[in-house]
Amino acid sequence: MDGIIEQLKDLLPHARLFMGDSLKERYSHIWRMNESLKAMCLLLPESTEEVSKILKICHQHDQPVVVHGGLTNLVGGTESKGHEVVISLERMNAIEEIDESSRTATVQSGVILEHLHQSVEKKGLLFPLNFGARGSAQIGGIISSNAGGLRVLKYGMTRQLVLGIEAVMADGTIINSMKKIIKDNSGYDLKQLFIGSEGTLGIVSRAVLRLQEAPSSRNAAYLAVNDYESVVTLLKYFDQGLAGKLSGFELIWKNTYEQMTATSEAVRPPLQYDYEFYILVETLGSQPKTDQAEFQEMLENAIINEMALDAVMAQSPSDVDWFFRIREDVNNLTDFMTHDQHFDISMPVALIGSYIQSCYDRLEHIEGIEQIYAFGHVADGNIHFMIGKENQSDALRLKINDVIYGGLEAIGGSVSAEHGIGIDKKAYLKISRTAQEIQLMKTLKLAIDPKGILNPNRIFD
Amino acid sequence: MDGIIEQLKDLLPHARLFMGDSLKERYSHIWRMNESLKAMCLLLPESTEEVSKILKICHQHDQPVVVHGGLTNLVGGTESKGHEVVISLERMNAIEEIDESSRTATVQSGVILEHLHQSVEKKGLLFPLNFGARGSAQIGGIISSNAGGLRVLKYGMTRQLVLGIEAVMADGTIINSMKKIIKDNSGYDLKQLFIGSEGTLGIVSRAVLRLQEAPSSRNAAYLAVNDYESVVTLLKYFDQGLAGKLSGFELIWKNTYEQMTATSEAVRPPLQYDYEFYILVETLGSQPKTDQAEFQEMLENAIINEMALDAVMAQSPSDVDWFFRIREDVNNLTDFMTHDQHFDISMPVALIGSYIQSCYDRLEHIEGIEQIYAFGHVADGNIHFMIGKENQSDALRLKINDVIYGGLEAIGGSVSAEHGIGIDKKAYLKISRTAQEIQLMKTLKLAIDPKGILNPNRIFD
Repeated sequence: MDGIIEQLKDLLPHARLFMGDSLKERYSHIWRMNESLKAMCLLLPESTEEVSKILKICHQHDQPVVVHGGLTNLVGGTESKGHEVVISLERMNAIEEIDESSRTATVQSGVILEHLHQSVEKKGLLFPLNFGARGSAQIGGIISSNAGGLRVLKYGMTRQLVLGIEAVMADGTIINSMKKIIKDNSGYDLKQLFIGSEGTLGIVSRAVLRLQEAPSSRNAAYLAVNDYESVVTLLKYFDQGLAGKLSGFELIWKNTYEQMTATSEAVRPPLQYDYEFYILVETLGSQPKTDQAEFQEMLENAIINEMALDAVMAQSPSDVDWFFRIREDVNNLTDFMTHDQHFDISMPVALIGSYIQSCYDRLEHIEGIEQIYAFGHVADGNIHFMIGKENQSDALRLKINDVIYGGLEAIGGSVSAEHGIGIDKKAYLKISRTAQEIQLMKTLKLAIDPKGILNPNRIFD
Repeated sequence: MDGIIEQLKDLLPHARLFMGDSLKERYSHIWRMNESLKAMCLLLPESTEEVSKILKICHQHDQPVVVHGGLTNLVGGTESKGHEVVISLERMNAIEEIDESSRTATVQSGVILEHLHQSVEKKGLLFPLNFGARGSAQIGGIISSNAGGLRVLKYGMTRQLVLGIEAVMADGTIINSMKKIIKDNSGYDLKQLFIGSEGTLGIVSRAVLRLQEAPSSRNAAYLAVNDYESVVTLLKYFDQGLAGKLSGFELIWKNTYEQMTATSEAVRPPLQYDYEFYILVETLGSQPKTDQAEFQEMLENAIINEMALDAVMAQSPSDVDWFFRIREDVNNLTDFMTHDQHFDISMPVALIGSYIQSCYDRLEHIEGIEQIYAFGHVADGNIHFMIGKENQSDALRLKINDVIYGGLEAIGGSVSAEHGIGIDKKAYLKISRTAQEIQLMKTLKLAIDPKGILNPNRIFD
């Protein structure tokens, strides 16, 4: 161990190498800032070359490495036990270029999502990825976890927004594939290896991201229905009638909606508490006048044709903010929980109604559960559960997992739609993936990181 | 060799195993049907299990395998020398399910693209991938080559349209990842390995494809400008003003346009021969009346604001067909060539004008070149060259390659935007990809197909 520390000290100045007491000011997750980071040391490289040199040293010493970005992940992906070298990309936070013709942003991995949003907005462009943790989440972590969020329906997940990548492999080799081009079928598309593999195959150091022309109209509405079949019908209806403009189609179950709209005037209910399901629809377009009229006409027809029981359209940008605040501010759910447990599952859209209902039915009979809330990106087949519990016992946690995950394999669902597997969901990977798939993942890991030093024991052991 | 043939004969009935003289009726490319297939044998499996059993036998005997789909590829991807076992997926042509709620099609690999189009259309749905060879190309080849085509701008390449995959690995292991879900971040996204790797990592046997609601409006127009900067300006203009509806933005150079519109009344020129660049713009939407009015207004404003010098909008569906026939029927170019040579390059959009001009300038000075035509999917940064030559000499071919490929590395371009590398472009892979990238590709190939039996010597040696 002494050898490696000496080598790292030779490489990085004192201020960018944390050890011993100086680790006390660091942490491994933004929700647990009071718990000091457990690590052999923490390093703050400022360039890809430094990342490469650090990994060469660690590789030589068979030294496990854990990578830190914005520390917002929800599956234990950034946790460490004490013997690891932790590398944080936070100093690599340059937005190197925004190219208005190619509509690309070239960035280092430590760039915070919200900073990127602000920079591209000034040029009339949009980086469409968006989710609650945008103020902390960094591009490197976003790519490594293939983040999703609120605009996947229209723009896709992170995987679809990455044109080029630079990654450092376990032995320090730099894979530079930083092209600004949309189409490149020259050999294997290697960037796919690093997107969504949770830092286990390489450390993403830079990326070329695809931008869009910024939309100039945004509309939103809440609709209410009493049965899940109507949700599917409305999704098809809006997708047919608003081709290319439908950007959000979020579903909120009755009891979740009641809680989301109960805590303050800022999240007052746009529709009354009379229905089983509430749907938040969003459109993004480029013709403000006609877009609004078109959307309004579609809402009216949905009511006239009894596809929806009630509907209300946002009449102003502040209404749109209000409508989204209800859906986005999950603190209105978790603030009232003694302990909480979150889920992020996906399945074919048609099966969501019955699956979630059966989860509710079974969860209601489990002692120790105090609240059950379901909501999510229904158009993507992705539902989140937030469950409040009276205690943190393993027994209760596992019992809840069994209910939520238990039926997913049979219906071709996934235990992780957006958040990844990390450490927390490893035991459930086999529900989503076959033995042959997991074996192939291990083959890849062994081929690309044969010493297993990168984010070890994430996804699988 | 006797051992392997005996085992294969035990597996497949006589009618689905071609050897010796019966190979004379088979071929390796639809453009060369008069050249008999060179192979040890050709096999027609009817199920994934049969593909698996065939590969197990071949793997045991270290037997090279070449995979056949619709035989429309343009890079020698389906060629064989005589010692290979050729597997054609043509009998595996079932459309197993079209799911209107999940908007997915579950298909076997041998399904022909046009058949899929027809089947989903009946349900009011769209599989957006579209290109000239749709009447022959099969889904397996389309996935293995990550095909692109005319609608990439709006819907993405094949990679973005595949939700689930089933593939058979070199040793016969079946990787079944046939989920109908849009979001799945549970471990490595293994399907990405098989998409675009040209059959070198596994044989795609089935897939779940993502469908879209069918658009109900389609509009098209030709515009003309005299400088490339105006092309980029117009692309941004239409992308801003037609958010989500812009589905095609094709560029045709002056001399190409003149030839494309010269051969018959069916491809008569919509705009006169007065300009340097002709742009074909297409929109797909869901509101026929307003979509047309909106598009027309955008065209008028483009003229009024002097962004375009001339423009003509299709007034009917048959006009739209006419406009596209000009762009799609490349026989109007190649029919007049003694010998032809095709290119499929990509680069950042802003650099296309000067790069292609410099290619024209240099090609015009090469003896033996008779025609030079450039056109392509400019919004995707993807340009095709078709070059007519008086002879097929290697010297001339390589001289032309040097001009077209020579400057791509410096500007971050690709020698293959859509068509892949196959056998024909292997020598140029290093222009698009770094030594480290190619080494990583080889690491992957070695890990996944250690005996190197699958489509050997494609992409790299």
